[in-house]
Amino acid sequence: MYMTQNVDHFGFDNTQTYQQRYLVSNQFWNDDGGPIFFYTGNEGDIAWFCNNTGFMWDTAPEFKALLVFAEHRYYGESLPYGKDSYANNTMLNYLTAEQAMADFAELIKFIKQTVPGAAKSQVITMGGSYGGMLSAWMRLKYPNLVLGSLAASAPIWQFEGLAPCGSFYEVVQRTFQTGSQQCVDNIAYSWGAMTSLWPVELDFLTKTFDFCKPIESKDDLSNLLDWLAGVYGNMAMVDYPYPASFLEPLPAWPVKEFCKHLSEPLKDKALIAAVAEGVKMYFNYTGQASCINMSEEATGNLGDQGWGYQACTEMVMPMCSNNTNMFYNIDWDFSSYAATCKYEHGVMPRENWISLNYWGKDIKAASNIIFSNGLLDPWSGGGVLESLSPSLVAIQIPSGAHHLDLRGKNPGDPADVIAARQQEKNIMKNWLYGPGR
Amino acid sequence: MYMTQNVDHFGFDNTQTYQQRYLVSNQFWNDDGGPIFFYTGNEGDIAWFCNNTGFMWDTAPEFKALLVFAEHRYYGESLPYGKDSYANNTMLNYLTAEQAMADFAELIKFIKQTVPGAAKSQVITMGGSYGGMLSAWMRLKYPNLVLGSLAASAPIWQFEGLAPCGSFYEVVQRTFQTGSQQCVDNIAYSWGAMTSLWPVELDFLTKTFDFCKPIESKDDLSNLLDWLAGVYGNMAMVDYPYPASFLEPLPAWPVKEFCKHLSEPLKDKALIAAVAEGVKMYFNYTGQASCINMSEEATGNLGDQGWGYQACTEMVMPMCSNNTNMFYNIDWDFSSYAATCKYEHGVMPRENWISLNYWGKDIKAASNIIFSNGLLDPWSGGGVLESLSPSLVAIQIPSGAHHLDLRGKNPGDPADVIAARQQEKNIMKNWLYGPGR
Repeated sequence: MYMTQNVDHFGFDNTQTYQQRYLVSNQFWNDDGGPIFFYTGNEGDIAWFCNNTGFMWDTAPEFKALLVFAEHRYYGESLPYGKDSYANNTMLNYLTAEQAMADFAELIKFIKQTVPGAAKSQVITMGGSYGGMLSAWMRLKYPNLVLGSLAASAPIWQFEGLAPCGSFYEVVQRTFQTGSQQCVDNIAYSWGAMTSLWPVELDFLTKTFDFCKPIESKDDLSNLLDWLAGVYGNMAMVDYPYPASFLEPLPAWPVKEFCKHLSEPLKDKALIAAVAEGVKMYFNYTGQASCINMSEEATGNLGDQGWGYQACTEMVMPMCSNNTNMFYNIDWDFSSYAATCKYEHGVMPRENWISLNYWGKDIKAASNIIFSNGLLDPWSGGGVLESLSPSLVAIQIPSGAHHLDLRGKNPGDPADVIAARQQEKNIMKNWLYGPGR
Repeated sequence: MYMTQNVDHFGFDNTQTYQQRYLVSNQFWNDDGGPIFFYTGNEGDIAWFCNNTGFMWDTAPEFKALLVFAEHRYYGESLPYGKDSYANNTMLNYLTAEQAMADFAELIKFIKQTVPGAAKSQVITMGGSYGGMLSAWMRLKYPNLVLGSLAASAPIWQFEGLAPCGSFYEVVQRTFQTGSQQCVDNIAYSWGAMTSLWPVELDFLTKTFDFCKPIESKDDLSNLLDWLAGVYGNMAMVDYPYPASFLEPLPAWPVKEFCKHLSEPLKDKALIAAVAEGVKMYFNYTGQASCINMSEEATGNLGDQGWGYQACTEMVMPMCSNNTNMFYNIDWDFSSYAATCKYEHGVMPRENWISLNYWGKDIKAASNIIFSNGLLDPWSGGGVLESLSPSLVAIQIPSGAHHLDLRGKNPGDPADVIAARQQEKNIMKNWLYGPGR
């Protein structure tokens, strides 16, 4: 379904509108008082998130809830300027979290006004990752519309001054240690092994990894290292306990699968070959790809172009690695980050806006938010891991990866995610019906 | 003092900045833990508000507070595009409450970062009228920066669907009844008396009121009635218990003074002449004006041009009069209001944005706000008159007009405003130091 939205909620000179897409299911809804579960869409096609958020579908019958999945502007079909939405920075000017949340607020109001029975329904926002941040922030900024929020794997503190920039890679290393310490040690050595192939043996990398485009220059080599670091981060994010295809089609516990290739002490080309085998497992588990395309880090369902812009404007998330031995040294330097943004996107990021606008570490004035984090998930380092008040509840899921709790139930679910989902439901019942119901 | 601010806090295409003015007094401040009283400037020159907010100066010594008065963008000297700021709607696009509040948030952060000792200071926002709304909304939207808010005479509910549109004029009538019922009855008859002079005796109005520009047409007559209704509203707003010159230089209890001219049953031209005498008292108490200029309703310190734009964009405050006998029938019709805005300002107002963005009637998720209202003040009809929770406290001041409590102490202060100020100080101490201190 589609709703007409203002392109600019924060100014009156631009009077254009666009069609925001949203998906609705009233299959389980009690239209005489059942709540609304409202998914705050993130950086991608909403249908994909709808299909990867089984928790809402599994939970709706018990709550007799209406399900709404709202697409985030500039992603999927919700393009303010159609195919020109990314044409230039004037077109892109309305791609911000504030505008997206204003869309969500207007949509909640619209649904309450137009869907018979919805006027008296309480709204609970739900989301994961960036969508989880939006879910929490909706409760901060629009508590009149939102009774409570489930913010799954939402790194609301992965911003300047709020969390150490090294936490992401530290958690990646910790997750790879669940494979084996040997695996981590091998990865630690692999960077040097690859670098030492420069300048005459880069061809070995191209062949061993089956890259679609050859590694030919020092820049290519440097990009390969960055890309691999990102791949390890993604692999930890999707370290799910059963076969899944969130970012890529993968076996259960993909980090352990990867580490099977690195369980013995290895060095030089044998080490690189073992890393490459693991990486090919990650990218080509189905065996359908003929080569690995380094420019595609994750699924095409995520709007990398849009997120690149957001990361270069509001969503400045400092990352570094100085305290792990698994990674090479990665410094965080806002100036060079900003220079890259200026060069690649023509915009200057604002380092501190998110901390200022969304209350930084000081969110105790808020209430009714669940912050769930899987401890295998590198983003947990920027998340809220300890409860801040009786109504700002943190749930840790030790064997969970990136918002595992939002996924549908599965025979392979560990006990801790089953318990987390139960706790989430109990808390939501408490919001909706009061204690003890 | 001046701070460099982004012209657009909510987009990244416009990279321009401007200089926001603010005034600071550290005369009473304890820089080792004293709080910051932060005046959230409204639609006018900040120096004028600084001089009309004696409460902050009177209270600062007791709290050892730093005083900050922040000018609202597009008013006073805080002009994003200098003298061109009002040139067209592209220039005016950044005149919104959200942008102004983002300025305030950045300024609070800037002061905490740059003024030695301020980092650990708690911030209490204070403001009156529209500035009072901003003060309250700062606590809603930025509670990380703002510990609590004093919102004096802030009609946060004078918006669509939140308060009856007739409340303003009903309070005006109630305030004129403090003059006398006869006064109200005379005013009620005066509209017909004036209208009956059309078409051949309009000259009588020009002469009797000493208007600078003659009343010559039916439109002029209609404008006169609207203007008079506005004058009565302003007179009730500034019905202070001692001589003051907030909007105009006036005697104590100006409504009673006005009503002295209307204390006997009058009709026809004698009635009009008596009304005119009262109006001349209001506009020319000092005897310096040679004629009355109908296009000047209030002081030149208020930015009428900017407020006209704001009223035609976000600040849509429905007004009507169907339930009073003192006024003629005034209907509220958003469509015709919008059409006038489109014609006069080239913009379309958004009727419901303020209700949506600032939580409408449902602000119970907020805390630490004092809503004070003088019951003589017509804006009290759109204010919060009953406490909503132990930390959302309403204070009624029966003999107070428009934010009398924010004015400096005066020998003519009634007991209720003295008590209100004491209660406000007690509550602020509770925020700052905990109960019982």
